[in-house]
Amino acid sequence: MQAASIHSFDQAIALEPVGDHRWRGATHPAWQNMVGPFGGISAATALQAVLRSPDLLGTPLALTVNYASAIASGAFEIEAIPVRTNRSTQHWTISLTQADAQGQAQVALTATAVTAIRRSTWQGQDVNLPSLRPPSEVERRRVPTHAWTERYEMRIAQGALPTTWDGTDHGSRTQMWVRDDPPRPVDFVALASLADVFFPRVYLARALAVPAGTVSITSYFHANDADLARVGDGYLLAEAWGQAYRHGFFDQAARLWSADGQLLVSSQQVVYFKE
Amino acid sequence: MQAASIHSFDQAIALEPVGDHRWRGATHPAWQNMVGPFGGISAATALQAVLRSPDLLGTPLALTVNYASAIASGAFEIEAIPVRTNRSTQHWTISLTQADAQGQAQVALTATAVTAIRRSTWQGQDVNLPSLRPPSEVERRRVPTHAWTERYEMRIAQGALPTTWDGTDHGSRTQMWVRDDPPRPVDFVALASLADVFFPRVYLARALAVPAGTVSITSYFHANDADLARVGDGYLLAEAWGQAYRHGFFDQAARLWSADGQLLVSSQQVVYFKE
Repeated sequence: MQAASIHSFDQAIALEPVGDHRWRGATHPAWQNMVGPFGGISAATALQAVLRSPDLLGTPLALTVNYASAIASGAFEIEAIPVRTNRSTQHWTISLTQADAQGQAQVALTATAVTAIRRSTWQGQDVNLPSLRPPSEVERRRVPTHAWTERYEMRIAQGALPTTWDGTDHGSRTQMWVRDDPPRPVDFVALASLADVFFPRVYLARALAVPAGTVSITSYFHANDADLARVGDGYLLAEAWGQAYRHGFFDQAARLWSADGQLLVSSQQVVYFKE
Repeated sequence: MQAASIHSFDQAIALEPVGDHRWRGATHPAWQNMVGPFGGISAATALQAVLRSPDLLGTPLALTVNYASAIASGAFEIEAIPVRTNRSTQHWTISLTQADAQGQAQVALTATAVTAIRRSTWQGQDVNLPSLRPPSEVERRRVPTHAWTERYEMRIAQGALPTTWDGTDHGSRTQMWVRDDPPRPVDFVALASLADVFFPRVYLARALAVPAGTVSITSYFHANDADLARVGDGYLLAEAWGQAYRHGFFDQAARLWSADGQLLVSSQQVVYFKE
């Protein structure tokens, strides 16, 4: 039995060591999506296997997660291997497997990560911070279709889900304030999950809820530990938009910012869709 | 001896099978960068190992390449394994190794790819096509510092390299026409390379040629074979911009379009820089 005081996010990404660079975890009902767990929590769990390693160098810089199949409810194993360690960067190869009906391990997720030691350099930003009214003035939207959507407080200033699914042409951009519900201090695993918090852009672009699911997501982390400490459990500014929809797949880009305007994460993903 | 009629791009990505899902290749002097080969040609070579596989399903959808170390001049081996094959998608794990002085295989590059069968669906684009004068009216820029830069005809309408490296604040956006030199019909490996054709954005943002190199690049392919056949060996519209520069790393985004306005590739990369 898990203590109620452990945040469901931390319960969901909990890993038990079962060998050299090998970990066992389990899906969590609070983070369930339509089929299998929310992709963000799976990405966070893959990253957690890296962060738990005694060999870890630095903090996360880049994470790519490929969703090879739906993850079944229950146990899984993650292998996270540091295949190359340089002076200031480290390269990780990750896979998540589950036993099939015959007891054979099947790959359900592959990933790569780069961790890096951060140092002080020139800094700048060449993208525009969205201008939103403060969180208290933006309505919280709930879409209680799947458990995971209740794990985030989403205050959507632009680009909420359509209220009428009428197939008309809409823009695909969402701008919102977001934080964990209940609040939880932001760390790298939280950011890995939040990068996937946006509904499939095709829902907005078409005002049609066609079947859709992330195939691959890549996120870059622009923060160090001190930056994240400043954010604490405050709201993040979050923005996403679709790009090209064609031949059964589309891509969407996303950015997560601190409330004081630091770009924390830039991310893109490719998503399958039907019709 | 290779016939002069084989394009240097095809020479550079040539692979010889050396085992189950294993291939041998070699660096090519015409594609040399500052330290090791141009990252684009290495990405293309990794993808080529996927495309050469007799097990291949579909065409490239997503490619992530992590540059774990400089690739030394000479031979390398690539392993490209289809770790999961679904009805319409296939997931690949790729690594490039070279023998060190002790003859031990060292990982110089890791990658993942997703290939997919494309089917006819609704299509749309939610990003703006840059408006450029035709290629004949845009000056070709040459930066013959490294061999690979001569492999591409770059007609830069906006965001050429600074002519004075004065450390002043500049925008980081480049818009240009680009094609292989000599021309070569565009295919997926060509796009994988072209996605990396842009100079590090920090050169533009700062007007300072600080040390910089790609750590990881992810590209999504929005074209099918018929789309690419329409492009032929014509010019592509190419656009890139920097996003956040901080703690020794920055990210840049890129898009490649056909001349008639189809987004062919969206890409992002994270780059280390000094100072």
